[in-house]
Amino acid sequence: MATLGLIEYKDASPKVRAVYDDIMATRKTDWINNFWKAIAHDPVTLKRTWEDIKQIMAPGALDPLTKEMMYLAVSVSNQCNYCVASHTAAARKQGMTDAMFKELMEVVGMANETNRLVAGYQVEIDEKFLSR
Amino acid sequence: MATLGLIEYKDASPKVRAVYDDIMATRKTDWINNFWKAIAHDPVTLKRTWEDIKQIMAPGALDPLTKEMMYLAVSVSNQCNYCVASHTAAARKQGMTDAMFKELMEVVGMANETNRLVAGYQVEIDEKFLSR
Amino acid sequence: MATLGLIEYKDASPKVRAVYDDIMATRKTDWINNFWKAIAHDPVTLKRTWEDIKQIMAPGALDPLTKEMMYLAVSVSNQCNYCVASHTAAARKQGMTDAMFKELMEVVGMANETNRLVAGYQVEIDEKFLSR
Amino acid sequence: MATLGLIEYKDASPKVRAVYDDIMATRKTDWINNFWKAIAHDPVTLKRTWEDIKQIMAPGALDPLTKEMMYLAVSVSNQCNYCVASHTAAARKQGMTDAMFKELMEVVGMANETNRLVAGYQVEIDEKFLSR
Amino acid sequence: MATLGLIEYKDASPKVRAVYDDIMATRKTDWINNFWKAIAHDPVTLKRTWEDIKQIMAPGALDPLTKEMMYLAVSVSNQCNYCVASHTAAARKQGMTDAMFKELMEVVGMANETNRLVAGYQVEIDEKFLSR
Amino acid sequence: MATLGLIEYKDASPKVRAVYDDIMATRKTDWINNFWKAIAHDPVTLKRTWEDIKQIMAPGALDPLTKEMMYLAVSVSNQCNYCVASHTAAARKQGMTDAMFKELMEVVGMANETNRLVAGYQVEIDEKFLSR
Repeated sequence: MATLGLIEYKDASPKVRAVYDDIMATRKTDWINNFWKAIAHDPVTLKRTWEDIKQIMAPGALDPLTKEMMYLAVSVSNQCNYCVASHTAAARKQGMTDAMFKELMEVVGMANETNRLVAGYQVEIDEKFLSR
Repeated sequence: MATLGLIEYKDASPKVRAVYDDIMATRKTDWINNFWKAIAHDPVTLKRTWEDIKQIMAPGALDPLTKEMMYLAVSVSNQCNYCVASHTAAARKQGMTDAMFKELMEVVGMANETNRLVAGYQVEIDEKFLSR
Repeated sequence: MATLGLIEYKDASPKVRAVYDDIMATRKTDWINNFWKAIAHDPVTLKRTWEDIKQIMAPGALDPLTKEMMYLAVSVSNQCNYCVASHTAAARKQGMTDAMFKELMEVVGMANETNRLVAGYQVEIDEKFLSR
Repeated sequence: MATLGLIEYKDASPKVRAVYDDIMATRKTDWINNFWKAIAHDPVTLKRTWEDIKQIMAPGALDPLTKEMMYLAVSVSNQCNYCVASHTAAARKQGMTDAMFKELMEVVGMANETNRLVAGYQVEIDEKFLSR
Repeated sequence: MATLGLIEYKDASPKVRAVYDDIMATRKTDWINNFWKAIAHDPVTLKRTWEDIKQIMAPGALDPLTKEMMYLAVSVSNQCNYCVASHTAAARKQGMTDAMFKELMEVVGMANETNRLVAGYQVEIDEKFLSR
Repeated sequence: MATLGLIEYKDASPKVRAVYDDIMATRKTDWINNFWKAIAHDPVTLKRTWEDIKQIMAPGALDPLTKEMMYLAVSVSNQCNYCVASHTAAARKQGMTDAMFKELMEVVGMANETNRLVAGYQVEIDEKFLSR
């Protein structure tokens, strides 16, 4: 049902295969999920998106688990079903337990609630928050 | 400009003061930010929201810093200006460094980008993600 | 700061004035708020939008107060600051009390919270909800 | 497909059963919809969410039908499919007719349209809306 | 599964049939897609929505292909699955090639990313953008 | 008010200056807007975002004006005020007339309206749209 269909490894061009190979090597896995197969019709976007994600999700000031949970939190908030399914799997692979997932969900729910209280009550930013 | 105005401590009812006191004691601070003063016109919502946040943001399977950064990530994604200002301050108080903030922003930006790639390319959920 | 500026009554074309006149007559008021002055640069959109709103917000199976409060609830949920300000005023004119506003805000907050719990817990639609 | 699965009544802990019982008693029904079964993995969130909804949706300054229709309006605006299905059913149970539903949809559609006109034309808030 | 079901041509009232006929004539096609059949339960909304779309999507300062691609871009950004499917088909009918679709997706993804960078970094509008 | 402040050219590191120089050269302008100065605190994100935008917004299957208008359409739909201001300026520079802007706004408004009609009427995707 994907707009342009899915490009399987065996049908992929060398340029696409190189990205698929790097995804599998980096993630220590032997399969490619549909997201990559769907955008592979645009090899430039495929390569750019993968390289951006690879760099952004690598360990830095934040560890990969925290980053994956943030990615999941945003995807939940945006109500992207595919993204919730795939990043739940990714976060679990990084070590997210069910207890962590439940707390993540509490935070996402509460943030969405208070974001709207702010909008409806038309709360102005406190002076203290404006000064650095 | 707040819809119903702001209720300052000196003008607050005992019920509202009790919440203000608990906020200041819990957060080890001596002031109340506008969000609470704006919703204090509805003491039931004020009390419920505060108690929910107090419970949800307490240490658990996730530490308070991780929770605050998730709250911030969702608020950024929702483009709630007040919430970004207040939760940036809250996250910093919990220990968020500038380096952490920058990586948080990278993740939020990337998640919002790929959430839309998924929608536009109409990517179906992989079988592997459906089975538990 | 409006993109194309605001068109005041005295500077308006007869076509735009006719819409302004109808807005003031329908709403029993003697002024036009900025929204209409901003979109008046596109007289076709001005006329269409006004006529749609006039028809949609008129009494029907739902009364005008309920409709205005729904309009406000959606605008709050979408975090449109101008819309919150203008539709709060409009709802009050229709009879919305502070007590009603507070309950409206509770509903909007809760709906936004549970909408995300549904997304994150990946809840499937119950069979009972699918059959009519 | 729910992230953590669904907890049926017969498999529920006493704490979860107590909430299920209260839901069924309050709603005068003999079944529990998937939303509750999905979040029951987190009994604290289950209990809190239910008690919040029970309190918020009870008759007050607004009647339960108006509240349910607002909840539905926000869920439609947020494009949460599960929420639309479940709250359409809930609103109908409270007395929403097809005629009411159609008018609700007109309001939600129009609000989403004008919210964007405001953003694109960069409309500034009128002085009159700022003064209380 | 549509809330009120779908109204087929043979079961439609003369008023609804007139709209269906105009849709087919305008689009040079012999079938009606589900969107129209679903909202046909509200003939006033059906007629208004169709006439608005017919007028808005007609050639003007922008050509129909550009308009359809913009419609698609917004629908992708809003993650409306039905809308993505139907407006992808509509845009292709107007001449959108796969290459155009891929570039459209790049723009939508990038816009969603930078929109959030702006929110999180709390970027203020440049003076130059305020003056006309 | 930007979270980390704005980095002016004279205070920028060579790495940041190189991006600023390329922005000014590519856009044939002698100033840098606040967006870049705000994210310049993260030189990696600055460079990546600029290079992505430079590549994506270049002429391809779609011309730069069409791309800028799509970017604007998405930003309007997302209600990002800064983005609306900056991309309105950018689109005008590429040749967007007021007439084009007005039609763009009509499309964005209508898409947001019908996206919600689809959600509320729970319209299922037509078989014809699923087959490629």
